[in-house]
This record gives sequence, C-alpha cells and structure tokens, in this order.
Amino acid sequence: MLKPEKQLEIIRRGAIEIISEADLLRKLEVSFREHKPLKIKAGFDPTAPDIHLGHTVLLEKMRQFQELDHEAIFLIGDFTGMIGDPSGKSEMRKPLTRDEVLENAKTYQDQIAKILDPDKTRVVFNSSWMSQMSSSEMIRLASMYTVARMMEREDFKMRWVHQNPIGIHEFLYPLIQGYDSVALHADVELGGTDQKFNLIVGRELQKEYGQEPQCILTMPLLEGLDGVEKMSKSKNNYVGITEPPFEMFGKIMSISDEQMWRWYDLLSMRSNEEIAQLKRQAQEGRNPRDIKVLLAKEIVARFHSSHDADAAEVEFMARFGAGAMPNEMPEFSFAAGEKGGIAIAVLLKQAGLAPSTSEAIRNIEQGGVRIDGQKVADRALLVKPGTYVVQVGKRKWARVTVR
Amino acid sequence: MLKPEKQLEIIRRGAIEIISEADLLRKLEVSFREHKPLKIKAGFDPTAPDIHLGHTVLLEKMRQFQELDHEAIFLIGDFTGMIGDPSGKSEMRKPLTRDEVLENAKTYQDQIAKILDPDKTRVVFNSSWMSQMSSSEMIRLASMYTVARMMEREDFKMRWVHQNPIGIHEFLYPLIQGYDSVALHADVELGGTDQKFNLIVGRELQKEYGQEPQCILTMPLLEGLDGVEKMSKSKNNYVGITEPPFEMFGKIMSISDEQMWRWYDLLSMRSNEEIAQLKRQAQEGRNPRDIKVLLAKEIVARFHSSHDADAAEVEFMARFGAGAMPNEMPEFSFAAGEKGGIAIAVLLKQAGLAPSTSEAIRNIEQGGVRIDGQKVADRALLVKPGTYVVQVGKRKWARVTVR
Repeated sequence: MLKPEKQLEIIRRGAIEIISEADLLRKLEVSFREHKPLKIKAGFDPTAPDIHLGHTVLLEKMRQFQELDHEAIFLIGDFTGMIGDPSGKSEMRKPLTRDEVLENAKTYQDQIAKILDPDKTRVVFNSSWMSQMSSSEMIRLASMYTVARMMEREDFKMRWVHQNPIGIHEFLYPLIQGYDSVALHADVELGGTDQKFNLIVGRELQKEYGQEPQCILTMPLLEGLDGVEKMSKSKNNYVGITEPPFEMFGKIMSISDEQMWRWYDLLSMRSNEEIAQLKRQAQEGRNPRDIKVLLAKEIVARFHSSHDADAAEVEFMARFGAGAMPNEMPEFSFAAGEKGGIAIAVLLKQAGLAPSTSEAIRNIEQGGVRIDGQKVADRALLVKPGTYVVQVGKRKWARVTVR
Repeated sequence: MLKPEKQLEIIRRGAIEIISEADLLRKLEVSFREHKPLKIKAGFDPTAPDIHLGHTVLLEKMRQFQELDHEAIFLIGDFTGMIGDPSGKSEMRKPLTRDEVLENAKTYQDQIAKILDPDKTRVVFNSSWMSQMSSSEMIRLASMYTVARMMEREDFKMRWVHQNPIGIHEFLYPLIQGYDSVALHADVELGGTDQKFNLIVGRELQKEYGQEPQCILTMPLLEGLDGVEKMSKSKNNYVGITEPPFEMFGKIMSISDEQMWRWYDLLSMRSNEEIAQLKRQAQEGRNPRDIKVLLAKEIVARFHSSHDADAAEVEFMARFGAGAMPNEMPEFSFAAGEKGGIAIAVLLKQAGLAPSTSEAIRNIEQGGVRIDGQKVADRALLVKPGTYVVQVGKRKWARVTVR
C-alpha cells in the first residue's frame, strides 16, 4: 500500500471537491495502519445500462481507488427502479421486473470490466436491504431530515419557486440513497457534482445511525457531443464505451475544438505536462484536427485496441477525404418536432446548407449529403435527437444538434 | 331504518361542515336500499385515554350514526404511537409498547361504553395494517401527494413561514391517517374542525386507490374550562367523563356565563327550543348560576345518574354556601413557574385576593382560602396548571387559570 499522503495526492487529481481532505487523510491513515481497505461507494441508475464516456470520469476514479487497494462498491439503485415512478406521471419510468434488473446488472458488469478490475469490484443492489425495510423504519428515516433542509437541493428549490409539483416520495429518494451508505458502512462516496446534495445526506444519515460519516468526493460532469448538456443517454449526446471503433472515433472527431480541450482534461490519461504541450502546439499553428485525432485514438485504443484505433483513423480519413473536413464549422441546435426528429431536407435548409428544401432534396438524390460521413440515401430521413457532422458536397459543413 | 332524508337531518345537526351533503345523501340512499350500514370512522390518539367532554361532541355524533343503524369504527392510531416521535425531540412522545397500547385501548373501551353502544362499536388499531406495510408501499403512498398541497395545511404553512422545522416524517402522518380510510373502506369520517385537512387526505387517497371517496363531517371544537383553548388533557382544562360527580359538577360550575351557552349548544341534549327559552329567561333576570346548575346536573346525570347529580348539587351548595358564589367574577391567567405551578400565596396576591403574600399566608392559616370549594390547608401549596374558582373569605372570588 502507498503511504496515505501519496494516496491522497492521486485521489485529489481531477476531483472538484473532497469533504473533507483532513477526514479522508485520517481514514487513509487508519486503513494503512490496520491493512484494512476503505469501502468506496458509487451509485448507478438501474435503467440505463449503456455506460458512456461521462460515466468513465467517475469509474476511472474508482479504478484509482482499486489500484490503491481499496474496495470498490458498484451500487445499482434498483429499489426505486422496481417501484418505478410511483406518481405514474412519467412513461419513462415503468417499474422494472427483477429479471430486467438482473439483465441490466449483467450488462453493467460486462461494460465496467473495461475499466474496473472485476475481481476487486463488489456489485450490490440496494433492493437487498431496502425491500426488507418496514414502513416504520422508513418513517424513522424520514424523521432525520427537515423539509427546509431538503428544499435546499437546487432542483427542489427551483421547482418550489416556479410552482412545479414535487411529489412527497421525491423527498424520500435522497434519504434512501443516503441510507445505502449506512447499509454499506461506506467510507467514501463518489459522485458527479450534481450529486453533492445526495452524497451529503448519506454523510449525515451515517452520523444519525451512529457511524463514522463517509467522505464525499465529487467529479466534474462531462458535457456531451453538443458541448452544452451533460452527457447522457436521454439526450443522445453520448459516446458509449461499447460502441464500435469507427463510430466512437467519428463521434469524438465531431466535437468542437473548445470541447476537445475539456475532454482532454477529463478523459485523457496523458499527464498535465503533455496536455499543456499540445495546447502550446495548437497556439503555434498545429492543426487542431490532428490533436483531436490523438484524443480519438487514445480513447478508441482504451476501449478496443490500438490496432482498432489505427484502423478507425484510416477509415475516417478515407470517408471524409483526407484534409477535407474543416477544423471549425458553424454549429446549430434545433428542437425535435412532433415526430421525434427533423426531416433531413428541413434540417439542411435551416442549417444554411441548402437554399431551399427542394434544393436539399436534389442534393440528397445526387448523393451529395453525408451525416457523420455516411451518405444519406433516404430523402425523407427523419434525423433523431443527437449531434452530427452534416456535409453537403465538398465544401459545406455544419455541426448540428437535434434536441 | 329511517328514510335517508330524515337521517341526513339528524346527522346535519351540530355539524360545522359536511363534504358533501349530496354525496352523503347518495350513500345513505344506497345503504337504505341495500340494507347495508355505512362505515363511520373516527380516529383517536392512543396516548391520551382520558375521554373528556371535548371528545363527547364527536362521540355523540357517532352514537347518532349507531342509532341510525350504521357501523361505528373507533380507530386507535397506535401505529405512529408505537414509533413514538422519531425525531426524538419531544419527551412527550416516547414509543408505546404493545402492552401499553392494549391497556390504553381497554381504558378507552370502558369509557366509550358510556356513550356508544359497545355491541355495535368496532374498535380497530391502525398498526394491524400499517405494521405490515412495506417501505415501497409507503413510497407509493407518498407519491400521491405533492409537497405544495401538504404545505396548505395550516400548521405546516405557519411553521414554514416562521422557519420552524418540519420533519419529513410529519408529511407522512396525514397520509397514514388517510390510508386508514382506504384500509377500512370508510364511508364517512368524523373529526373536529382542526382535522379537516387530514380528513380530506383520506378522501383523496381513497380515490387514488380506486375506492369511492368517504364523506367527511366536521364537528366544532369545545373550549376548555378557561374558555380560550381547545379542551385537552395537556392543557388540564378538561372535564373527564369518568370524574366523580362532585368534581364534574364543580368544574362545570366554574365556567363563565358566556362559555356556559357554548357548552349548552355543544353538549346539552335539550332541544334548540329549550335552550332558546333558557336564554330568554337569563335576559329577563333569571340568575345564570341556576341555569348553569341545570347544565351541570344534566351532564353529571348522563355520565353517572340523576341521583348523583342531585347529591353533587347539594354538596356543592353546602360547600360554597348557597347563594354565596357570585355569578360573575374576575378572571386571571398565569403562566406556571419553573416548578410546574404557582405557589398559592403568590397566586392570591397576583389575583388581587390578598394585598401581599404574607397576608395571603395568614388567610390560609386562618382557614379562609378555598379552591373549587376545598379548604386549602397547606400554605406552601403549589397550584398546578388548570382552571379553578378561588375564594378568600366570603366575598373575594376569582376564576384563575394556571397554564
């Protein structure tokens, strides 16, 4: 085991906040002295088993803890998933069956094996303790927090101010997430910055239950391909870690130059010095597209192989014609229409790639329109939400987000 | 069974609000047609088994339903009582054991037999279904109400505005009370006007659970001996229905003339015409004390016997000296001191019954001080919270509330 101060230095890298470093150092010291690994908890949604680059920011931090010989606990929050959205307001949250939960868990496990050491990762389901909990224990749990403190959570506060409804059960969910830390005797909980409130609830509930409170560590949230929203499956602005090499490569190549540096900071394993050097090169005139290729290859190599990375690069260059894709291109964001997307001809017109929809249709029929390098054959194509590089002929390009 | 319209006429008498009369009439009609009694629910606190005149306002209404051949369900809310006050903030709400709950229930049953027909009264405990409820069912229940709607309850609203803490579990209690109506398939729920919010929750939860919603009927709240606060055990301003005849008689005689008419309205079985006649007599110069004697005798006779009522009157007149007690007397209200009461000498001075505490002590030693007709022997007596008629000599009187 590494010395506690050395461990803390590694853990600190890339984190937004640790509450508190002093507590964490103390825990690391006890762990070091007693040869007892710390329990590192991170919770995941049971309904979205597609792990994407956004998740990996957190998972890489978990892997670091594993490499420091601590115990990574991958918690699947299936309990509320099996209840569904009890208010019945959201079609999105139908209750999951036990089988669906197990199947999702299996998919999770297959995917996280690309990052975490499967032999050292404990996968747990919070239904295993929550479904045992009686209503009186739930009331006891609810008594540990006040309405005013719960209302401090940003999304509750905003909904209250804007008179949007908050179901009373929604006040119970952070308490359940917090109780998971009690049930696991977690030493550290990791989460995105948007999870800070819930992580603190866990910390405080542990105190109420007479446990030493967990330390919390928040990681930055990676923006998706659109460069605006948090990467998420529901926004379709994500790069899944099991996507084929060429799709993964192409998606990464579609991000803006500005976003590229953000991705370097959050996703690259290169040292800070190497990244600083690349920035200097860009300032001195190196083509940013070449620097983006390095990032795309690094990431494809991580989740596939360096051979796959090379092959993806070759294919990408062949499709787009070497040197044809411009470094910067105009960006557009359109709301999806009632049909759940935008007709390709309308999109081309609105993005200024064609003077009219009839001209756009002619371009398609002549085989001059490509989306992410793929030729568009269907003149009635409905472009679904997502971010794409759209090309008309050799010279007209745009980065378009349908949301 | 009486005709539905006739039943409604009886039910309506004395009620503050019925939601809604049209629904209730419809329920009565179905019940009449199908010879199926309605289920009439009223909930009671498991911690306060001393039934007092304040409770009887509601219990008499239940009795009327019984006489109309409906089923009276006396619900003891022991479930939350057995949890206690989970926030641990209130010493008053220690969890009750199963044995304590059963003992309290026994005491309740003995007492309500003085009003309700024990053979036609179903006594139920909400723990019998609530302790079976899983935490996921509790979450489902919580999802049926929004924070904003819960915050409409007057006491929550005031605490929120004044930034006094509200525990999240407190939002669950009205839902549990409402769920009791679901579990019982209640047709009608009775409560004091302060219960209106909770009764409506029951109504709405029944709809959520696919049942026909209960009708609600609110009864006025009886003020206690002090004429200000709602009658309650904790304020010690109550007349228990099992108190001995003389104590009961004396307490009723201690209320103010104004309060007497309120008690006539809420407690007397006399017809509206008889009460109106008594009011006329008072206006025409009949001594209000004599009218108060009629009320006291009616109530003592109800809970004991008319023989006991006569004997109490005789003893009361003997103790106070017939005609000596004035109709009206000055009223005082003092806060109890640190010791949980006020020293008799201080009380006499503050109520203007003695010019100084030393003079007050002299009066006590001379046997000239009486509280509710009882001679005070102990010069250091600590007068506990309650409302009393205090007398010094023949001519000095005051009605004193220690709170």
